[in-house]
Amino acid sequence: MITTDLLIIGAGPTGLFAVFEAGLLKMKCHLIDALPQPGGQLTELYPKKPIFDIPGFPSVNAGELIDNLMEQIKQFQPGFTLGETAQTLNKLEDGTFEVVTNKGTVHHAKAVAIAGGLGTFEPRKPTIENIADYEEKGVEYFIKEPEHFRNKKVVIAGGGDSALDWSIFLDDVASEVTLVHRRNEFRGALDSVEKVQALKDQGKIKLVTPAEVTGIKGEVKVTAITLEKEGETFDVETDYFIPLFGLTPKLGDIANWGLEIEKNAIVVNNALDYQTNIPGIYAIGDINTYPGKLKLILCGFHEATLMCQSVYNMLNPGKKYVLKYTTVSGVDGFDGSRKEAEKAVVKKID
Amino acid sequence: MITTDLLIIGAGPTGLFAVFEAGLLKMKCHLIDALPQPGGQLTELYPKKPIFDIPGFPSVNAGELIDNLMEQIKQFQPGFTLGETAQTLNKLEDGTFEVVTNKGTVHHAKAVAIAGGLGTFEPRKPTIENIADYEEKGVEYFIKEPEHFRNKKVVIAGGGDSALDWSIFLDDVASEVTLVHRRNEFRGALDSVEKVQALKDQGKIKLVTPAEVTGIKGEVKVTAITLEKEGETFDVETDYFIPLFGLTPKLGDIANWGLEIEKNAIVVNNALDYQTNIPGIYAIGDINTYPGKLKLILCGFHEATLMCQSVYNMLNPGKKYVLKYTTVSGVDGFDGSRKEAEKAVVKKID
Repeated sequence: MITTDLLIIGAGPTGLFAVFEAGLLKMKCHLIDALPQPGGQLTELYPKKPIFDIPGFPSVNAGELIDNLMEQIKQFQPGFTLGETAQTLNKLEDGTFEVVTNKGTVHHAKAVAIAGGLGTFEPRKPTIENIADYEEKGVEYFIKEPEHFRNKKVVIAGGGDSALDWSIFLDDVASEVTLVHRRNEFRGALDSVEKVQALKDQGKIKLVTPAEVTGIKGEVKVTAITLEKEGETFDVETDYFIPLFGLTPKLGDIANWGLEIEKNAIVVNNALDYQTNIPGIYAIGDINTYPGKLKLILCGFHEATLMCQSVYNMLNPGKKYVLKYTTVSGVDGFDGSRKEAEKAVVKKID
Repeated sequence: MITTDLLIIGAGPTGLFAVFEAGLLKMKCHLIDALPQPGGQLTELYPKKPIFDIPGFPSVNAGELIDNLMEQIKQFQPGFTLGETAQTLNKLEDGTFEVVTNKGTVHHAKAVAIAGGLGTFEPRKPTIENIADYEEKGVEYFIKEPEHFRNKKVVIAGGGDSALDWSIFLDDVASEVTLVHRRNEFRGALDSVEKVQALKDQGKIKLVTPAEVTGIKGEVKVTAITLEKEGETFDVETDYFIPLFGLTPKLGDIANWGLEIEKNAIVVNNALDYQTNIPGIYAIGDINTYPGKLKLILCGFHEATLMCQSVYNMLNPGKKYVLKYTTVSGVDGFDGSRKEAEKAVVKKID
């Protein structure tokens, strides 16, 4: 069982920054995310795209912003449960919470902050009758650990950036990469399209277009897929079939936790602390709603900060909180580190 | 007369970022600040100090954050009235506002956002009887334009970073720099203290400690100051006397504008748009107050953003606002510039 002060559901920018603000208040955090890495849609959907409205950054790539946030919070040693979705939430008799994931991981926390963005990113799956039978048996919708594919045969399906980028990346890892797309045209960064063209010309990536995967074969796990190309059907031996058809956000199980929901978002008290209708459960970032709500990262940062203050006050009743500025007080990490401004010296000049 | 959509009083980080958010909504901004340069206390009080709690920056120097914000907003061409304080505010019959500064500059705007931080930074003045007679006649509390002192004699008084740093800087500009402090010990960055020591040793800066300036002489403007050092009194010829004894924030004239004030801060509606009790006037950043308020820069950014939305809705009644993401839509500057993410290409691979 994982025990923490503040359990954060969603490891996008808002959830990550909450770790920093909680850390300043000496509260430990643990994050759950359905994706295999932190960063939410910034890492998964547009890591190389610039964002222009993060205050203080005339332009910052989404992936770089997440790297910066991970660096900013590392001193507070957050825990992560990645590649799992929070499925059930129970408020225990003592007012604390138990959250269990789809894989059975149990988390126990004094407060819960839902920072789930647009929801759980669920992969769009190809309509192949028996595909569910092969999930985690050769069919992968995310690439969690590229080393997993070392010296294996992989078939990637899709025509966007993910399909292009992973084909390029796995070319160095897998023994054989086949890229299947239902059109001849790919849609992605110019650079990626050109790289795939070059790898295809060198015979390093097999390209099958316009074609679709229509079947999966294998006793225990995937051993081959069936392809249909211009009316012709044939099998291709493979160890893995990786369809990368994009992700759809779904509120998912969170919708069943008794929270007040409005238009797929969680209603919070924006006049105070972004708490939901269930005391001790907060919702911050794109997943919440209130009058005048804007789904902007910078708003999530503010909401995370006020949420942390409220959790601190709840967990430390009667203790008077005094705001300290990081420039004045420095930052003490849970790992023993300390960041501080250079102190002024008092020195005689003679 | 200066005319603008949104008049922002205070050019600290919150006021500056408001220009960006207003710009995304095609609204022009003009800023008024009592200090001679943008940045508020970040530039004036601690430009070289690191801040650790700006989201996405594990550490950023205050001056660097302001430089970044100025870069981020330059495409929206804000106007500035610097070195003047907003003195009177009148709501005109048509609902627009007229704001006049202490120097008589008239501003006309459709909405006003007060982003005044802790208030107007007023210099702590030495208790010299006739000092007021010499203000702007050789007595300067801020250094607005260093070139002003080219080949002139200056006497700086003070024992902190400002006095040290300006003594170092003006050594290259003025014909003679005298630094007076009532103690032998200076309090500042080690580097600055050491530089002043070296300049003193080289005979480039005259140091008079422990001493105080007790009088000012001159017919029309300053020609000399009177110093008292260890019981002895003597005159030093000078063109300028620059006492740098620190700044005190004062709410000042804003307190007389009919706004609801609580503990030196302006009460706003945090449940919606950070508007004050006077429709069309908003207060954002450290100068406002509401339940759970935290005086943090990152909160000011959020408040500025929601304020801009509200102003947009007020100025464009009935027009439905659709939030656009900068990553998706890019940013169009008022100067004809355009920032945008690299577009995906659709390209055949064969």
